Amino acid sequence: MSTHGDVTVEELHLAQELAGSGERAASADVAEYALRLGDDALILSQQLGAWISRGPELEEDVALGNIALDLLGHARSLLRYAGSFDGRSEDDLAFFRDEPEFRSAWIVEQPNGDFAQTIARQLVVSTYMVELYAALRSSGDATIAAVAEKALKEVDYHRDHAVQWTLRLAGGTEESRSRMIRALRDVWPFVDELFRDDPLIDRLGDAAARPSSLRAGFDAVIDTVFARADLAVPDVAASSAGGRQGSHATPMGHILAEMQVLARRHPGATW
Amino acid sequence: MSTHGDVTVEELHLAQELAGSGERAASADVAEYALRLGDDALILSQQLGAWISRGPELEEDVALGNIALDLLGHARSLLRYAGSFDGRSEDDLAFFRDEPEFRSAWIVEQPNGDFAQTIARQLVVSTYMVELYAALRSSGDATIAAVAEKALKEVDYHRDHAVQWTLRLAGGTEESRSRMIRALRDVWPFVDELFRDDPLIDRLGDAAARPSSLRAGFDAVIDTVFARADLAVPDVAASSAGGRQGSHATPMGHILAEMQVLARRHPGATW
Repeated sequence: MSTHGDVTVEELHLAQELAGSGERAASADVAEYALRLGDDALILSQQLGAWISRGPELEEDVALGNIALDLLGHARSLLRYAGSFDGRSEDDLAFFRDEPEFRSAWIVEQPNGDFAQTIARQLVVSTYMVELYAALRSSGDATIAAVAEKALKEVDYHRDHAVQWTLRLAGGTEESRSRMIRALRDVWPFVDELFRDDPLIDRLGDAAARPSSLRAGFDAVIDTVFARADLAVPDVAASSAGGRQGSHATPMGHILAEMQVLARRHPGATW
Repeated sequence: MSTHGDVTVEELHLAQELAGSGERAASADVAEYALRLGDDALILSQQLGAWISRGPELEEDVALGNIALDLLGHARSLLRYAGSFDGRSEDDLAFFRDEPEFRSAWIVEQPNGDFAQTIARQLVVSTYMVELYAALRSSGDATIAAVAEKALKEVDYHRDHAVQWTLRLAGGTEESRSRMIRALRDVWPFVDELFRDDPLIDRLGDAAARPSSLRAGFDAVIDTVFARADLAVPDVAASSAGGRQGSHATPMGHILAEMQVLARRHPGATW
């Protein structure tokens, strides 16, 4: 419930940042890192939200809708923290940045496609996020550690969900199996980007989780799932995907247009 | 979590209907009534789901996303019950009916518009739904009564949410107030349809809530809210809106296309 009387939400967030939360402002590097994590969650949330009431099963639409809302919660915490560096709100960051300012990885931009493509994308991203947030619980940055602690429980459920569907599709009909195999092939070029280190990571030290250090855990989970589902890791070349530096692929423009059109049509409206 | 092993979701629902739930099959008239209620919830859910990550405030997107999921839950219960009459599943009813077979009222088809339009639509529909489900708790049909009991708690929150935002927009800036007034004017022609009796209602007797009997409670709530917000009931003519008989307006085709495209592209796919 939003019952803030005459106080605008913007003022409220600012007040929380300055006083209520006890949260320190992020440094420039930590803010950039929080953007990476927050943008992954935000873009994936927007994509999954499109499944509400859009099939192929209402039961599943509820599950994906709940996952979308979990991710939106993570995105809000992370973007709010990122904005504490230069006084921008979570809404400024979500709705008033242009494409080159987004730091999300290319995999979350990949289209929903048929249901198998959504599940393949979920399998990769949720498995990555479990490794990520498990490591970040011991981040040297207290705010990042607190977000990770909360997010881990939720992405752990997201991973269960994706694993069960992967097994079900791979072990279902010939049709569902061939769709699952094709879907994994489509997303696999974008796995690599999630595990690339760069100078920001070096500078952050123990505040961040080193992406390359998360790969072994990811591979172990994927290997187990693929063994049970009689699937093989797709033999495809890694994309050069530069989302962390603000380079994005074609679908991103459309995703951002949908996300931002309303807020931008009335900039500064105090709803 | 959906861990049904090799059992398809369709088989599972059928099994639940036939054995597990202890639910009686609906009669033709009760099924038609359940469709009216279920379609209102389904279409509104689909519309509200579009707000996830689409502004103007991430906090609000979370609230509207949660409301969308509540409504999707009501729709599932009601469509499942409607389908028990002739053996169709909730998914059959959601994804494989054509426009003239939908029984939703025109107000839920009205566009999201700007945020004020969504709130005006929410104010009307949630106030109506509180009256509806409060009355249906004593329905002579045990399944309808059980759904109403559960749904009432949720639509009561939806109404609080809409009332608070109505007060906030009407009492905010000149801009927000004029948007709220215009939005109420846009949705008000579609209020009347919600409270129209017809022969089906006569036949259903105490299984249904007589729409005309809900109007006084609705008006009392609206009058209180409008008095606090210094708003007047819009002076507009009622639309002839015939959603309960399967006549729908232009936006409905687009809503259904979005909802059904995936399920229809692969009919019979056992995901």
